Amino acid sequence: MVEVVALDGDDTLWHSESYFTLTHRRFAELLAPHAEPDALEQQLLDVERRNLALFGYGVKGFTLSMIETAIAVSGGTVGADDIATILAWGKEMLAHPVDLLDGVAETVEALARSHRLVLVTKGDLFHQESKVARSGLADRFEHVAIVAEKDGATYRRVMATVGVPPERFLMVGNSVRSDVVPVIDLGGHAVHIPYHTTWELERAVLPVTDDGDRVWELEDIRQLPALVAELSGTRP
Amino acid sequence: MVEVVALDGDDTLWHSESYFTLTHRRFAELLAPHAEPDALEQQLLDVERRNLALFGYGVKGFTLSMIETAIAVSGGTVGADDIATILAWGKEMLAHPVDLLDGVAETVEALARSHRLVLVTKGDLFHQESKVARSGLADRFEHVAIVAEKDGATYRRVMATVGVPPERFLMVGNSVRSDVVPVIDLGGHAVHIPYHTTWELERAVLPVTDDGDRVWELEDIRQLPALVAELSGTRP
Repeated sequence: MVEVVALDGDDTLWHSESYFTLTHRRFAELLAPHAEPDALEQQLLDVERRNLALFGYGVKGFTLSMIETAIAVSGGTVGADDIATILAWGKEMLAHPVDLLDGVAETVEALARSHRLVLVTKGDLFHQESKVARSGLADRFEHVAIVAEKDGATYRRVMATVGVPPERFLMVGNSVRSDVVPVIDLGGHAVHIPYHTTWELERAVLPVTDDGDRVWELEDIRQLPALVAELSGTRP
Repeated sequence: MVEVVALDGDDTLWHSESYFTLTHRRFAELLAPHAEPDALEQQLLDVERRNLALFGYGVKGFTLSMIETAIAVSGGTVGADDIATILAWGKEMLAHPVDLLDGVAETVEALARSHRLVLVTKGDLFHQESKVARSGLADRFEHVAIVAEKDGATYRRVMATVGVPPERFLMVGNSVRSDVVPVIDLGGHAVHIPYHTTWELERAVLPVTDDGDRVWELEDIRQLPALVAELSGTRP
């Protein structure tokens, strides 16, 4: 019996990774005089991984990591104009309109009629708050948790805040590592809805539970109300 | 009768602005070939003010603003090595040990014996969580709110979360603009404890309340338990 449905933001409710992908492509073009695309991509990923413990997730850290990578792969010869271009991309990503995935608005609307909804989103506080506000969905959520990391401790805190045990908590998101695994580990339910692209550092294998009925994978968020209704013994 | 004492983090519990001041000084030295210190400082402030709506508060946004300023004041001639130096300062600021202000540890300890404590701190989520964890004070707080902006809506949300009306809420911090004014406007109590330096964008005039007994200014956080005891009709 699911009482609280928690939803991830980036790449579950609204597009995010596709802007990163676009910026990666532009970055490869800009740095083409200094590095092969594959080597550049690998170097950027290494820099991001190394900086994660200091920067956390989000566009500002990504922008700083791009600048660091540009300086490194060019052997310190990259021009200030190129750095300025990278800075401008960072601002463009932060200012980008919030673009909901297909079917999100009506699905959230439908779920809100039968269940308590929570938004659990990771990344830069300021940018995420801005995205939540601009999404037009904020009113549908009983609680919005913007968190630095989606681990067991975070989900325990979210469940405590809304006063629900794991057995009545369902998390929905595109990241197996962040949205599925820690919730399953706590004894909750999770639905994985893959986005067409996944950041290297978020990749993981979908877990299999012993009791076999706590993890689901859906292709489209529009399939969610029917599943939730089934799990709750209600009609969609 | 004060029931909940809320404390600010940066420059109230631990040093923060002094690291920014140090970095400003280094920045002026680094850019000396390109700009006079006063003009540079003004330009950086303008860039920070303009970027605030996109970046919010915190070290990562500050680092990006320094890079943008360096490129602008040098007319695009600043070298990649100087940009790398600025990036390294940003990381240094993020990695810096948490350095509690004098008297903080024993004051928080004393307050926790008689009152419910809340931490309300602004800035980068990831960095603030890391500072709270490293401060050794986390256990003393019933609730830690890391917020993007300290305005009336934020304080209303914090009061709702801990279930306390403004009349029983006392906020303590070094920023008149962020820690005092919005709380007084809501009908709460506030104590201003100035830090030896205040960021230009946080400056404001201490409000005077009609009833004259909701705003206080203290020189040292060690004076706080006695004031709180007096306001609560208890002994420190």
